[in-house]
Amino acid sequence: MENIKSYVSQHKDRFINELIELLKIPSISADSAYSQDVLNTADAIKIALEKAGCNHVEICDTPGYPIVYGEKIINKDLPTVLVYGHYDVQPADPIELWTSPPFEPVIKNTEKHPDGAIFARGACDDKGQMYMHVKALEYMTKTGNLPCNVKFMIEGEEEIGSSSLAWFVERNQEKLANDVILISDTGMISNSQPSITTGLRGLSYVEVEVTGPNRDLHSGLYGGAVANPINVLTKMIASLHDSNNHITIPGFYDKVEELSSQERAEMAKAPFSLENYKKALDIDDIYGETGYTTNERNSIRPTLDVNGIWGGYTGEGAKTVIASKAYAKISMRLVPNQDWKEITDLFIKHFESIAPKAVKVKVTPHHGGQGYVTPIDNIGYQAANKAYTETFGIPAIPQRSGGSIPIVALFEKELKSKTILMGFGLDSDAIHSPNEHFGVFNYLKGIETIPLFYKYFTEMSK
Amino acid sequence: MENIKSYVSQHKDRFINELIELLKIPSISADSAYSQDVLNTADAIKIALEKAGCNHVEICDTPGYPIVYGEKIINKDLPTVLVYGHYDVQPADPIELWTSPPFEPVIKNTEKHPDGAIFARGACDDKGQMYMHVKALEYMTKTGNLPCNVKFMIEGEEEIGSSSLAWFVERNQEKLANDVILISDTGMISNSQPSITTGLRGLSYVEVEVTGPNRDLHSGLYGGAVANPINVLTKMIASLHDSNNHITIPGFYDKVEELSSQERAEMAKAPFSLENYKKALDIDDIYGETGYTTNERNSIRPTLDVNGIWGGYTGEGAKTVIASKAYAKISMRLVPNQDWKEITDLFIKHFESIAPKAVKVKVTPHHGGQGYVTPIDNIGYQAANKAYTETFGIPAIPQRSGGSIPIVALFEKELKSKTILMGFGLDSDAIHSPNEHFGVFNYLKGIETIPLFYKYFTEMSK
Repeated sequence: MENIKSYVSQHKDRFINELIELLKIPSISADSAYSQDVLNTADAIKIALEKAGCNHVEICDTPGYPIVYGEKIINKDLPTVLVYGHYDVQPADPIELWTSPPFEPVIKNTEKHPDGAIFARGACDDKGQMYMHVKALEYMTKTGNLPCNVKFMIEGEEEIGSSSLAWFVERNQEKLANDVILISDTGMISNSQPSITTGLRGLSYVEVEVTGPNRDLHSGLYGGAVANPINVLTKMIASLHDSNNHITIPGFYDKVEELSSQERAEMAKAPFSLENYKKALDIDDIYGETGYTTNERNSIRPTLDVNGIWGGYTGEGAKTVIASKAYAKISMRLVPNQDWKEITDLFIKHFESIAPKAVKVKVTPHHGGQGYVTPIDNIGYQAANKAYTETFGIPAIPQRSGGSIPIVALFEKELKSKTILMGFGLDSDAIHSPNEHFGVFNYLKGIETIPLFYKYFTEMSK
Repeated sequence: MENIKSYVSQHKDRFINELIELLKIPSISADSAYSQDVLNTADAIKIALEKAGCNHVEICDTPGYPIVYGEKIINKDLPTVLVYGHYDVQPADPIELWTSPPFEPVIKNTEKHPDGAIFARGACDDKGQMYMHVKALEYMTKTGNLPCNVKFMIEGEEEIGSSSLAWFVERNQEKLANDVILISDTGMISNSQPSITTGLRGLSYVEVEVTGPNRDLHSGLYGGAVANPINVLTKMIASLHDSNNHITIPGFYDKVEELSSQERAEMAKAPFSLENYKKALDIDDIYGETGYTTNERNSIRPTLDVNGIWGGYTGEGAKTVIASKAYAKISMRLVPNQDWKEITDLFIKHFESIAPKAVKVKVTPHHGGQGYVTPIDNIGYQAANKAYTETFGIPAIPQRSGGSIPIVALFEKELKSKTILMGFGLDSDAIHSPNEHFGVFNYLKGIETIPLFYKYFTEMSK
């Protein structure tokens, strides 16, 4: 595949422009106002897969947003790689913090990306990383370098829990049959140090509603005499962590996988500067569970974060009101062995149990997923590591990620195959934040590296 | 004044229609989007005072919204009544909970108001109650029944702290010289049991901002390792009350006036049904400071309530984000002897002191005011009580209100006169809430009762 480098450099402007066009479509799955844009993005992916050389592409209906399925089967006796990605994106707010409009992509140089980065919602998560695979396929088909069969499954609900994908996978096990699943929806340590994500955290996402009086009240006439649902909600949420920042939900830690001191020592080898970490976030101190390092807190330990809270008067100026209702969106990151449905039930039971009689509480589960681990002796992992080693000139480091791709655990259960997480983004790419971006270097390097995975995986499968 | 009843019944349709026109103007002082409406309301008040018989009316500029001043001086040797009211109103949100548009007044019958009530923002607080005084003046001037001098001072910033009024009063003590100040901006027990408010709570209103990381973060990649400003804010707010719902701010209670068991026994005589109270608010239990009754908690005890809270993702669906900032609006109701500026300083000092090093905290004071007490041996109180006794056929009960009219304490300091709080609204009139209304009976009864106050106050002043 010596010609991969030249093919990429020859077509890189087109590769970038095609991605920019894709990023212009605001495919925000969480907000129904954008539903037509989400559907339009699915159509765009279908066309892109056909052009890239798939011999069969279809848009598969689901109870929610459709799944784009494409395949290029060259020989039933050869292994099959199933590529998964998603074409939906996170909401863009707070919109006012974007330095350029989230759906008008621009290329700007940054300290981490001297060759330029594409700024747009979804640039890294996941349109940019997903599209690397489409362009890698284009290279392999156009140059006769496709060594095995390939299937694509690109969904539109990853940012809202992938419920339709779960529905689809359960019903299409034969169609989706594969030898390895390949996903680029994670990050790597730096542009000079590739890494492969070997662990993912699970997720349980709930919304809580606390109701006090049946209407908003004058805080002078009623203040002090009735339960203020906002005050009560803050007390309830605050009580979910103890003074060591341990989560207080009974049974929450029962199944948490405890790593050996040896494994923790291995993790500690990953390059990390606390000073740079604090500087990058402009914080005077870190904060978290007693007894664990920053890298452990955000990868091997479960967490509980409020992702949103609202209630009462939030406009300009002052209003002396006691709100009737207060709300919060709360998510828990889970580690391998914690079952997200079980944790969700424990949360609901506990949260209802700590509510004072003066309020009514409603907990609505949004979605969730299990954690996941890939063993590094898996040939998929080894093929990916060889590919990185060849294009970066240095082996990849195995890493546990704090993020969640709930569907990965489901793939293993339903499709009986392991997933290889070849991420090319950086933690500093601000995914889920204003000014999300994806390095041009990373995008092109991904397109270069992916065909090598196909090559080595096919060879090792013999 | 035997003809007052007939005058009111003869003109009542016009009285109601004039008020409805006034209520159509959305004079929301807290939201600058409505500033022209606030100014238009001032003009409408000026015209109304001129028509009612004032011989001099002017719109007085201030650093903020103007004050409408009017007077009818008939004899320098006679006592002077200064009427205070406000023409601004609270914001109308949550707008979706109104059964009719807040600024399109309609008359509907309710259980408490079988003769109908006018539904509109400001119907009771305070346009309706303020306008009773304008119509009472009309009666007295048109029928030669004005027994003393009268001055009107109607402001447009009561709902945002009356700062311009304070500025105005300090600069116009001579112009505002009076023997008693009359205000209708409070409530009474019921349409069959009048009451006079003899005490008001003070107020300190602040806004807090908690900043964590310098940008919104992915809760998977950073969750558990950095301070989540929303989680931290809930912990900080929760810690402001102990398990007995005592406020934990050091020094907060130092100057609180403790009532004697005798005074508390007097208060306990006011008719009150806990069952009806819970039923009216649809709550299973009350909630408040240990050791005090509901009527004590909302009148003679200081409180701390969150009036609004917001941060992170509050839209539809789920977003796994750690917000950069979280906010809350917090107000404290104060009792006589607590100084609002001192309490505000104590709050700021304490709130900053409990912030973990991992976040930055900013506290912005919005406004405040002192508490107030009127002794019942004051002739103004006695004149008001005689007026109520005559029109309602039963004496008024003196009552401490939990609400705040910060300006009342300032009047006493600057103008050296006592304020009589002749309220005609009901607690159930939903002021500051959706579907605010004011009973037609209460409106007309107020117009009937006010001239009698002038009569008896003038007689008792001889």
